[in-house]
Amino acid sequence: MSLSEFEIIDRYFTPLGQWQGLHTVLGPGDDCAVLSPPMGHQLCVSSDTFIEGVHFPVGAEGALVARRTLAAAVSDLAAMGSEPLAVTGALTLVVALPDWLASFSNALSGLITDWQLPLVGGNISRGRELSLTWTVIGSVPTGAYVTRSGASAGEDIYVSGWPGRAGLALSKILSGQQPAANLAKHYLAPEPRLLLGQHLRGLASAMIDVSDGVLADLLHLLDSSALGACLNAQAMAFDELLQSTAESPGAALKHFLTAGDDYELCFMAPATARAEIERLSLKLSLPLTRIGVTKAEPGVAFENLPEAVTESALIKAAGYRHFS
Amino acid sequence: MSLSEFEIIDRYFTPLGQWQGLHTVLGPGDDCAVLSPPMGHQLCVSSDTFIEGVHFPVGAEGALVARRTLAAAVSDLAAMGSEPLAVTGALTLVVALPDWLASFSNALSGLITDWQLPLVGGNISRGRELSLTWTVIGSVPTGAYVTRSGASAGEDIYVSGWPGRAGLALSKILSGQQPAANLAKHYLAPEPRLLLGQHLRGLASAMIDVSDGVLADLLHLLDSSALGACLNAQAMAFDELLQSTAESPGAALKHFLTAGDDYELCFMAPATARAEIERLSLKLSLPLTRIGVTKAEPGVAFENLPEAVTESALIKAAGYRHFS
Repeated sequence: MSLSEFEIIDRYFTPLGQWQGLHTVLGPGDDCAVLSPPMGHQLCVSSDTFIEGVHFPVGAEGALVARRTLAAAVSDLAAMGSEPLAVTGALTLVVALPDWLASFSNALSGLITDWQLPLVGGNISRGRELSLTWTVIGSVPTGAYVTRSGASAGEDIYVSGWPGRAGLALSKILSGQQPAANLAKHYLAPEPRLLLGQHLRGLASAMIDVSDGVLADLLHLLDSSALGACLNAQAMAFDELLQSTAESPGAALKHFLTAGDDYELCFMAPATARAEIERLSLKLSLPLTRIGVTKAEPGVAFENLPEAVTESALIKAAGYRHFS
Repeated sequence: MSLSEFEIIDRYFTPLGQWQGLHTVLGPGDDCAVLSPPMGHQLCVSSDTFIEGVHFPVGAEGALVARRTLAAAVSDLAAMGSEPLAVTGALTLVVALPDWLASFSNALSGLITDWQLPLVGGNISRGRELSLTWTVIGSVPTGAYVTRSGASAGEDIYVSGWPGRAGLALSKILSGQQPAANLAKHYLAPEPRLLLGQHLRGLASAMIDVSDGVLADLLHLLDSSALGACLNAQAMAFDELLQSTAESPGAALKHFLTAGDDYELCFMAPATARAEIERLSLKLSLPLTRIGVTKAEPGVAFENLPEAVTESALIKAAGYRHFS
């Protein structure tokens, strides 16, 4: 490693700090960044750590690491209905490889402008494994944030986008196949649903982002509102690309419900919101699929399961990820 | 490792999240925390990563890691003149040792209330080395934050507290000696100078916290205002404990100027502020020592150096830390 911490910052990160949003008073380079959030807004804050070999593949190129990890972090803002305000990044490197750093920095440069999330600070350390921690800060009109709790029995359960595509693409990559571009992009460059989240303020009664798979995160959501659900497997079979690429309807459903590599939003809304949610789906060109209804009794029941798929196998596959 | 991520959070961190400040709307447990900063304030934000064997000793007990790393992070808020608002912590563990986690969590519980810095979020990961990233968020009345730049030639240069004590205590510990309690506490439980920083709003023209040693951080401060300095070594010899514990006056000066383990504040102020700064020192029971003056010409000159200490050796010892 021939580059000093200061050289790495100067070459790969200082240029990124030059683009700042309307709400940055003082960007990177001092003891703190200074932000001036919009009047009448509250702040949303979340920190996430990503480690090579745990959260992204060993040897992944810089651009992939930037795209997938920042999407995962920003997705937490989307799930609150928040607008982006700023991000800090803490990067721990084992070696300072100029190609990797350039790839990471170039991708990051595009993402922070695409997502309007200025990089206001961070630091570079040297360690024994590659990891990074993003802290995302957003703002939301006072009181308008959407939590994981707040849903009632008899509400519709929705999921955005095309859950399962990223996981299916990854499983193909891991088995040495080349997934089609329209499948691969969901793994290579996931899109956090910032706009959707903002539009769902006042419509969704409860919301979460899908980081551990639709079913696992839906279970979190149901727990938070002390509800159960009846889910319709047929409604989850709308994605022709997933259906035609997966080995069977059962495999497609398993990817849809348990793959953890999409950053879609899962939310509840009362039936009175259906027309507005349909309009929103058209406006954003994004499927918002009604996959079931909440019920007062705890537990999850499935209707219309494809052959050879059991409820208990799905629940088991969605099992909370353990630390060891 | 027998504890799951959720069990670790439940046992050691959820209890800490139960204490929240006036400005927390939603604490840990959702996709984001929600904060409501005081009206008429701007936000200060900083992220710092700490790695075992790099930023704290291998095998350090949990309480020491919590105390030293959080002090270092919070010190960045102090250096802006900021009031504390919230902190997130991202902890990467190699193994989940209950004793270490209890020690870390207990110490952290005291610190967040002492420093009025509610823990609003974070996450636990498993990795190949122990590390943690704190993101501290503070607030400051609009426009009142103090930056590293803004000083003029002919201003006084001050440093707070007792720089060098922590470094001297550490060097004794590393050589197998037991430092006296009044020396050791500066290493074991450093105090970020939050109140001092807040009182210096409107008085200090530029400010930095001392994380790399007084001289290295003073050089950053001078660079930011494009100034030089004339420093008085005699003024740095006020600390009787440091003088009597160090091997020689020269060794004491070297600890004072180059040890990186204190989190004091270094700042400039015009001579007209002297009386007010003296009153502040009395009010806070904290030395605020005038160690030199800024000058328009770049470079740092020393007066009254003790025997066997050269300017060039000090500058060299303060050299920027390199990544490799």
